[in-house]
Amino acid sequence: MSKTVIPNAFYAQSGGVTAVINASALGVIETAQKYPKQIGKVLAGANGILGALTEDLIDTSLEAPSALSGLINTPSGAFGSCRYKLKSIEENRSEYERLIDVFKAHNIRYFFYNGGGDSADTCLKVSEISQRLNYPIQAVHVPKTIDNDLPITDNCPGFGSVAKYVGISTREAALDVASMCATSTKVFILEVMGRHAGWIAGAAGLAASEEGDAPHIILFPEIAFDQATFLAKVQATVEAHGFCVIVASEGAQTADGRLLSDQGERDAFGHAQLGGLAPMLAEMIKDKLGFKYHWAVADYLQRAARHVASQTDLDQAYAVGAAAVELAISGHNAVMPTIVRDQDAPYRWSIGSTRLADVANVEKMMPRSFITEDGFNITQEGRDYFQPLIHGEAYPPYEHGLPQYTKLTNTRVPKKLPDDPRW
Amino acid sequence: MSKTVIPNAFYAQSGGVTAVINASALGVIETAQKYPKQIGKVLAGANGILGALTEDLIDTSLEAPSALSGLINTPSGAFGSCRYKLKSIEENRSEYERLIDVFKAHNIRYFFYNGGGDSADTCLKVSEISQRLNYPIQAVHVPKTIDNDLPITDNCPGFGSVAKYVGISTREAALDVASMCATSTKVFILEVMGRHAGWIAGAAGLAASEEGDAPHIILFPEIAFDQATFLAKVQATVEAHGFCVIVASEGAQTADGRLLSDQGERDAFGHAQLGGLAPMLAEMIKDKLGFKYHWAVADYLQRAARHVASQTDLDQAYAVGAAAVELAISGHNAVMPTIVRDQDAPYRWSIGSTRLADVANVEKMMPRSFITEDGFNITQEGRDYFQPLIHGEAYPPYEHGLPQYTKLTNTRVPKKLPDDPRW
Repeated sequence: MSKTVIPNAFYAQSGGVTAVINASALGVIETAQKYPKQIGKVLAGANGILGALTEDLIDTSLEAPSALSGLINTPSGAFGSCRYKLKSIEENRSEYERLIDVFKAHNIRYFFYNGGGDSADTCLKVSEISQRLNYPIQAVHVPKTIDNDLPITDNCPGFGSVAKYVGISTREAALDVASMCATSTKVFILEVMGRHAGWIAGAAGLAASEEGDAPHIILFPEIAFDQATFLAKVQATVEAHGFCVIVASEGAQTADGRLLSDQGERDAFGHAQLGGLAPMLAEMIKDKLGFKYHWAVADYLQRAARHVASQTDLDQAYAVGAAAVELAISGHNAVMPTIVRDQDAPYRWSIGSTRLADVANVEKMMPRSFITEDGFNITQEGRDYFQPLIHGEAYPPYEHGLPQYTKLTNTRVPKKLPDDPRW
Repeated sequence: MSKTVIPNAFYAQSGGVTAVINASALGVIETAQKYPKQIGKVLAGANGILGALTEDLIDTSLEAPSALSGLINTPSGAFGSCRYKLKSIEENRSEYERLIDVFKAHNIRYFFYNGGGDSADTCLKVSEISQRLNYPIQAVHVPKTIDNDLPITDNCPGFGSVAKYVGISTREAALDVASMCATSTKVFILEVMGRHAGWIAGAAGLAASEEGDAPHIILFPEIAFDQATFLAKVQATVEAHGFCVIVASEGAQTADGRLLSDQGERDAFGHAQLGGLAPMLAEMIKDKLGFKYHWAVADYLQRAARHVASQTDLDQAYAVGAAAVELAISGHNAVMPTIVRDQDAPYRWSIGSTRLADVANVEKMMPRSFITEDGFNITQEGRDYFQPLIHGEAYPPYEHGLPQYTKLTNTRVPKKLPDDPRW
């Protein structure tokens, strides 16, 4: 290159998507636009890191400004996500050489990766290209995970909106069961995500505003499930309140670490089973206690529920995207912006940063002090943590009765590298 | 009674509750207040007709005005509902004599019953007390059912809000699957309510705004399920779009009328099964086509979702409550207010009325013309019907990040009748 060309940035979304990950994308893109002398274009990887490996790049500068700004209102990954983990440089050097080829071909010097723990590992490995393979890249991780299990950051963008959805859904369904319990349904079970940590299930505890309110029982992965104790609690709750609302984390497990929802064709209670913790618990209750039940499995609905996203979550998602660019501009590599809780009530937060090496592959479990002694609910300390994260309603615009989510053209950057059957 | 006492009204909620049935309650109560010379108090039956049979009556005049007006924002049945069907006067005359005893004791001359088809039958039977047992009661049915299967009325209060929830959820979950499909989930199944008619599943079709949008497949109870045709459609959809979103009515059934979700311990495909159509379909797709799947069962979440209720639905729910009182005041018995569609676009509606005898026990199925020829989606005619019913967002007030739903004291009216072990 005969004259100085302003380098481009790569941005991609990785792992399970959230209601607000596109807000982080917008934070990256809009902040990059503030530094036209340092950053040229933001090229988004189609389907995460795969977009870099396959040279499948999206030119975000070609989107209409109104379509792009609609990212703030749109759930899920507008550029596509992936579940793909890079091996180490030692194990698969050719993958890294390929990345460098693509980065070079498209003049990419900034790498923004938007994901959770596994993705932080990918971002960390890409950051090592700089020192170990001598290609000047600055890799900054943008935190995102509904699981809320990244360390160091107070919470993770995406979590607050799931927490709000689960809190609202629990409160609403509880009113339904309360209405019906005299002659019909007495037990309602809502299964929520969280395979390893009970953050999401815990947030459902916010639905209760006074003693005795639903949820009456929360099942956490952190607390070993004991059938007898559980059934006794269900029985006592129905006797006391006429009905019982249970929120079960999909990761609920017995003392020997076996997932309740993964017990083979026949479960421990002798029943045939076809996936789903909620129906399994429902059958157990019916068999042992005789109560009529209903159950729901929210699955993707919970993490895609942009229609009732937390404003706090949305603000933080945008802010970590913006901060990632600022960190890169100020010369950092292998870092991640974090959310810092400055104060509980009134809630105040700010953006900090941490070394990516301290984040990658570390899972933050919910503190035992957030869970009541009997293991079935959250403590005041837990409530104080969760409460501000669901604050504010970030409603999307509506048309014809449905939310208007942006549709990008996702125009591809012409490929510059020769066809290579490996990618 | 030596002087003229103004008669009271009985109001109760029956059957499965909805996001807006309490708005109908408020319509009844506030409209009754406009006629202080004709109607004394509105006494609400605790748990539907059971409240009348057991003399378990709630004095709504004792609620704080602010708590009462909060009914407009609060889902489910604030006075409790029931699943209880009166037998005919011939079969169980003592039940009707008991009703008359309670009505007499509490000077009840108006009977407002808020429910669906079964409840309309109950209301009709109560109306017969007037002529056949010579106690002057005016019985007016207030329509309500998420199933949207009452005849004569254009639609049923409660349905529009479920339709909106299902439309939103389908659109949101579809974005999630689209993000993930390159390396992960390719098929998503949302199971929705509707045991006999596909109204709710059909409304999910609104989520699509252009050709190829999700939902790609809707399973209606009205269309016989054929495994080969279904699987071919799933395969073709994944090939065309990279993913496939399916909305399945819980009432989906085979040509011989067997519910897909109710095939005993082992399903037709040789797999153990524990309730739930969505997991069953998911396993079928995994086995036969090999696609990774996710599934959700919305269950009560869909009918309790006041947080995103349809403003049109809310307005109509209030209006039928108000109209029921007007009908009673003008001397009617054994009638039901209806919603009349005056015009499609722009949508205009008004309130009519019909004889209850024409409503009770009649189920309105979805017209075949609302379903595409291949049986897997809705036609433009269907869209034109559904569209206005989800119009407008009736958000409840929020506090601490969660909707504030009203809590009534439900203060009981002192019993006047001697203890009777039968009730």
